[in-house]
Amino acid sequence: MQEQINRQILLVKRPIGMPDESCFKVVTSSMPQTAFGQVMVRTQFISVDPYMRGRMNDRKSYVPPFQLNEVLNGGVVGDVLESKSGNFAKGDIVVGNLGWQDYSIAGENAVRKVDPDIAPVSTALGVMGMPGLTAYFGLLDVGHPQPNETVVVSGAAGAVGTIVGQIAKIHDCCVVGIAGSDKKTKYLIDELGFDAAINYRTSPDLKKALEEACPNGVDIYFDNVGGDISDAVLSLINNNARIPLCGQISLYNEKHIPVGPRIQPQLLTHSALMRGFLVRNYTDRFGEGTRQLGGWLKESKLKYAENVVDGLENAPKAFIGLFAGENLGKQLVKVR
Amino acid sequence: MQEQINRQILLVKRPIGMPDESCFKVVTSSMPQTAFGQVMVRTQFISVDPYMRGRMNDRKSYVPPFQLNEVLNGGVVGDVLESKSGNFAKGDIVVGNLGWQDYSIAGENAVRKVDPDIAPVSTALGVMGMPGLTAYFGLLDVGHPQPNETVVVSGAAGAVGTIVGQIAKIHDCCVVGIAGSDKKTKYLIDELGFDAAINYRTSPDLKKALEEACPNGVDIYFDNVGGDISDAVLSLINNNARIPLCGQISLYNEKHIPVGPRIQPQLLTHSALMRGFLVRNYTDRFGEGTRQLGGWLKESKLKYAENVVDGLENAPKAFIGLFAGENLGKQLVKVR
Repeated sequence: MQEQINRQILLVKRPIGMPDESCFKVVTSSMPQTAFGQVMVRTQFISVDPYMRGRMNDRKSYVPPFQLNEVLNGGVVGDVLESKSGNFAKGDIVVGNLGWQDYSIAGENAVRKVDPDIAPVSTALGVMGMPGLTAYFGLLDVGHPQPNETVVVSGAAGAVGTIVGQIAKIHDCCVVGIAGSDKKTKYLIDELGFDAAINYRTSPDLKKALEEACPNGVDIYFDNVGGDISDAVLSLINNNARIPLCGQISLYNEKHIPVGPRIQPQLLTHSALMRGFLVRNYTDRFGEGTRQLGGWLKESKLKYAENVVDGLENAPKAFIGLFAGENLGKQLVKVR
Repeated sequence: MQEQINRQILLVKRPIGMPDESCFKVVTSSMPQTAFGQVMVRTQFISVDPYMRGRMNDRKSYVPPFQLNEVLNGGVVGDVLESKSGNFAKGDIVVGNLGWQDYSIAGENAVRKVDPDIAPVSTALGVMGMPGLTAYFGLLDVGHPQPNETVVVSGAAGAVGTIVGQIAKIHDCCVVGIAGSDKKTKYLIDELGFDAAINYRTSPDLKKALEEACPNGVDIYFDNVGGDISDAVLSLINNNARIPLCGQISLYNEKHIPVGPRIQPQLLTHSALMRGFLVRNYTDRFGEGTRQLGGWLKESKLKYAENVVDGLENAPKAFIGLFAGENLGKQLVKVR
């Protein structure tokens, strides 16, 4: 058997502002060993996610920061190459939070099986995984959409936004997406059935474009991006509006504390609710979420898009691309 | 019988920034007439409230703006001088939204009776009225205080803040008040049983003072003031914090759109909830609220303070004084 090597991607420098490739390094190490109660997972797909930017800072947050000169980690789908756990057999497809590397060792409780008959296994990192569940719980549990309400979603063409808009359509809402290219807005309307979509990069007056797209005001604003885009949406909220805060990607690379118009007066006079949420707050309801998402997928009520970059060594580039809005749908790296 | 005159206070100029007395004018008019189904109310107490500042702008909000050269209106307690309604008798004490004047005509559904045996009738404008109900629903329905949680309230010595802190103590919370004078902070601690109180005007570092007063972080921030004070409190929120937005008095006289650090990242990473609310959202639960407030008052679990200015003609001055923080407790004008 050929000598195997394990390529790994390390964080070697904490980014200040926008990350670049000098923050990352590809190294090789020897094959890891599988101990009792563990499995060796061969990486097939890596998930690159905006929230990882926060972990690159040396700052306490809801997840601990990445350590310098250690292997990055995030969502990974792979196949079990070796199992020393009674729960897994060689060849099982699993998903978990694992390293950005070819081979990972995982405790038997750190991964769960993926059923390849429901959908392609990569969806365990997208519509059937963390982004899908984020959309599901954020929209339904925080947003409580009602028929005929107007739902605006920013970052609408991303992994979460595409699912949010479709779930809102399933709930008979009027759905308006905000995204960063005409290709994306066309996709949202033509493929996903959004009622309207606005390209914020080319719109000369975002607030005016939103007013036209939302003649009845905004009842739910699912916020993935923050910043100026959110300011424009918030200026149009109706009484009793709900604002699930899912991400603030426009601010993640700010070097200073971002400043903007104070929003409390607007929330106050409209009896509006704004709520930050993390998908992991809903761990005990993941079963419900994946069953429902899988059901909609099977009924073709839910479509998904993936933006796949080839090669482990290109994971840093794919990550950096998130902040330029390069991805339509879920950004993945195909490792094998 | 002596010829009676009806003094009235008009809004004659919309304030730009901080209001001054030139915005108001005292005029006299003839006595109004009581028609069928109406009562004539002789004003005893007038409530002056920060929210009225918003109505002085010519801007659509949750209440319509005051009209120029018309009589101001707000909470009033008075006695029925003449009744052409089967629901009221001469001498009944009533409360309602009436004019800033000596005598008002009210439809029989526009006022409700006040029971003078429960507490002094002026409390119908304070602890037993709108400010008390605002504290009750904002803290309990939006804040959901749990035993041993830390509750911070700004504008703590005002009509709402004093009640919020005491209800939080009844719910076994650790309560920290922020107010604008040593007299106020002393009152909060010595008379109302707050665990700590901070004078934001003399504190050299508000954030540090809050850190010391809240060693376990902040679970609920009941916000009456907004601005820099709220920035300091928000920097200390715990996961799953709740932030009822009740008022933003520090911003009401701003001439431009107030700007400050963006708060969404902080709400997001702490899964925090911020919710604007208006007491009128709870109209159908006012009975519950007043019963509970009256019960606590009777059990001496709730104290209240009033800051009474004498004379209808001094109502504008009392209103302006709100923004200088002149009042400890509910600001009232005693008309007779």
